[in-house]
Amino acid sequence: MLVALAGGVGAARFLRGLVRVVPPEDVTVIVNTADDEVFHGLYVCPDLDTVTYTLAGAEHPEQGWGLAGETFVTMDALDRYGQDTWFRLGDRDLGTHIYRTERLAEGATVSEVAAEIARAWGVVPRLLPMTDDRVATRVTVSRDDGRREVLKMQEWFVRERANPVVAAVDFDGIETARPAPGVLAALEAAETVLICPSNPVISIGPILAVPGVREVLRRRRDRVVGVSPIIAGAPVKGPADRLMGPLGMEVSCVGVARAYAEFCGTLVIDSGDEQRAREVEAAGVHAVVADTLMTDARVAAALARHTLDAVA
Amino acid sequence: MLVALAGGVGAARFLRGLVRVVPPEDVTVIVNTADDEVFHGLYVCPDLDTVTYTLAGAEHPEQGWGLAGETFVTMDALDRYGQDTWFRLGDRDLGTHIYRTERLAEGATVSEVAAEIARAWGVVPRLLPMTDDRVATRVTVSRDDGRREVLKMQEWFVRERANPVVAAVDFDGIETARPAPGVLAALEAAETVLICPSNPVISIGPILAVPGVREVLRRRRDRVVGVSPIIAGAPVKGPADRLMGPLGMEVSCVGVARAYAEFCGTLVIDSGDEQRAREVEAAGVHAVVADTLMTDARVAAALARHTLDAVA
Repeated sequence: MLVALAGGVGAARFLRGLVRVVPPEDVTVIVNTADDEVFHGLYVCPDLDTVTYTLAGAEHPEQGWGLAGETFVTMDALDRYGQDTWFRLGDRDLGTHIYRTERLAEGATVSEVAAEIARAWGVVPRLLPMTDDRVATRVTVSRDDGRREVLKMQEWFVRERANPVVAAVDFDGIETARPAPGVLAALEAAETVLICPSNPVISIGPILAVPGVREVLRRRRDRVVGVSPIIAGAPVKGPADRLMGPLGMEVSCVGVARAYAEFCGTLVIDSGDEQRAREVEAAGVHAVVADTLMTDARVAAALARHTLDAVA
Repeated sequence: MLVALAGGVGAARFLRGLVRVVPPEDVTVIVNTADDEVFHGLYVCPDLDTVTYTLAGAEHPEQGWGLAGETFVTMDALDRYGQDTWFRLGDRDLGTHIYRTERLAEGATVSEVAAEIARAWGVVPRLLPMTDDRVATRVTVSRDDGRREVLKMQEWFVRERANPVVAAVDFDGIETARPAPGVLAALEAAETVLICPSNPVISIGPILAVPGVREVLRRRRDRVVGVSPIIAGAPVKGPADRLMGPLGMEVSCVGVARAYAEFCGTLVIDSGDEQRAREVEAAGVHAVVADTLMTDARVAAALARHTLDAVA
């Protein structure tokens, strides 16, 4: 059994490769839910949905969220009522959020609904939210006038396009969050734990911060292998650089290695970063070089193969 | 000031005519909310929305609900999750229901939200729900095997196309429902109270059954004028015949007159029903003959003019 820790787009692309090289039913994915947010009264789980849609082959090919071929009729209708619609939810995508919100109101857990949605899309790997409790990433930013302000993750990332300078990141509710059913058991039983190429601060960070998760990984460090989301000093997609830098992490595969060293024995870095392999090793992490830019599912499959081989 | 009691399509068409012959700001509409229902966790007020959309000139031209030019992408998406989607909510229309549901969750009343939605559509007449409390029409039907079953109004009307034979109609919650703010005062102060050509049983019936409403109308009987929704023994639209008949009312303008006689001094009947005028008068209701089939807004305006003149 394989377990993968996952955020959004980067993770989803990696997982699409992974299920080409191992039986999908052998894969459990533990997904970040600290980006979850309520929009217009609807409960949105961006990372769970991105992973689900991508594994179903239904994701939007360019933008980092939502479904292919979306329309935005309902968002336009909400504009009439003066609603903030900067988080653009497509009409097909809204079906998912309406369904999830109704199920949660009926008393279902995020885990249960995630499984139902995955099943509806024919997704075979087991998708687990990191927790069924509410955890919310809050980004403290420094405004131009020096004032500090606490933003919700999506406000910082989507509404303000990750422009405000980050001073701190917190995961509200994390201290009392319990791992979702199956999370710790899966990590204990996994032959290999893969850390997908996701944002180390706000995608992998919250999963690691769920009480109990980091401890299991530390004990199983030799079976943990990560893929650096940073290539040549920049993230492939998303705002990792705008979080790692201000929070004191070097924006490089070496910075990732140092952040993960405590619980991750091996890190896959991009072939363009080969000259940094020694520094990764110096951080106590075994460096493996591969092509990590997942331009298509074939490349993603090769990367997944390399990643598994690195700890075979 | 004029006050109109309104259900859905027939009322909306009449009101569109009315605001052509009187200043729209002089009109208060008291709208049935006993058909309100929660679909997919979203609070839908069919009659309020039909009146709002029609007064805004945005209603679907043929079907008796929703907006012109609708798409149904979100409904199709909900099908994937095995949801019952026989009540087809269009993508634009969903904006209204999402907005209302969020506002109600924030603590707003149905009245407040109805006013906000009307304002957003540029609708000038004041739209009041009959009550801010939850009232729900329940239709007891007799199945073919003799079994009785209680259906929600929309289940009977939309899902089962008004086919099951009706044994009884109840308005759950009506005993404790309070008239919405302004309802009784508007009825007391109205120069004329118009009963729109709506279903007497399930559209006008619930409004009359809100504690206090019937009493005011009874006292002001001379200022109350109705328009028969029944022409030549059949409703223009909707299932009035399938409710009036089984509940012991004659399906005719005479049946309407008898049902309204206690609180309605004048009834406008269709020119095709002229030969029934005497029977209407025999029921104690002054009969006025006019063209009541509102094929367009011009005809509706002429009907509104006639109706007002009948009690001038």
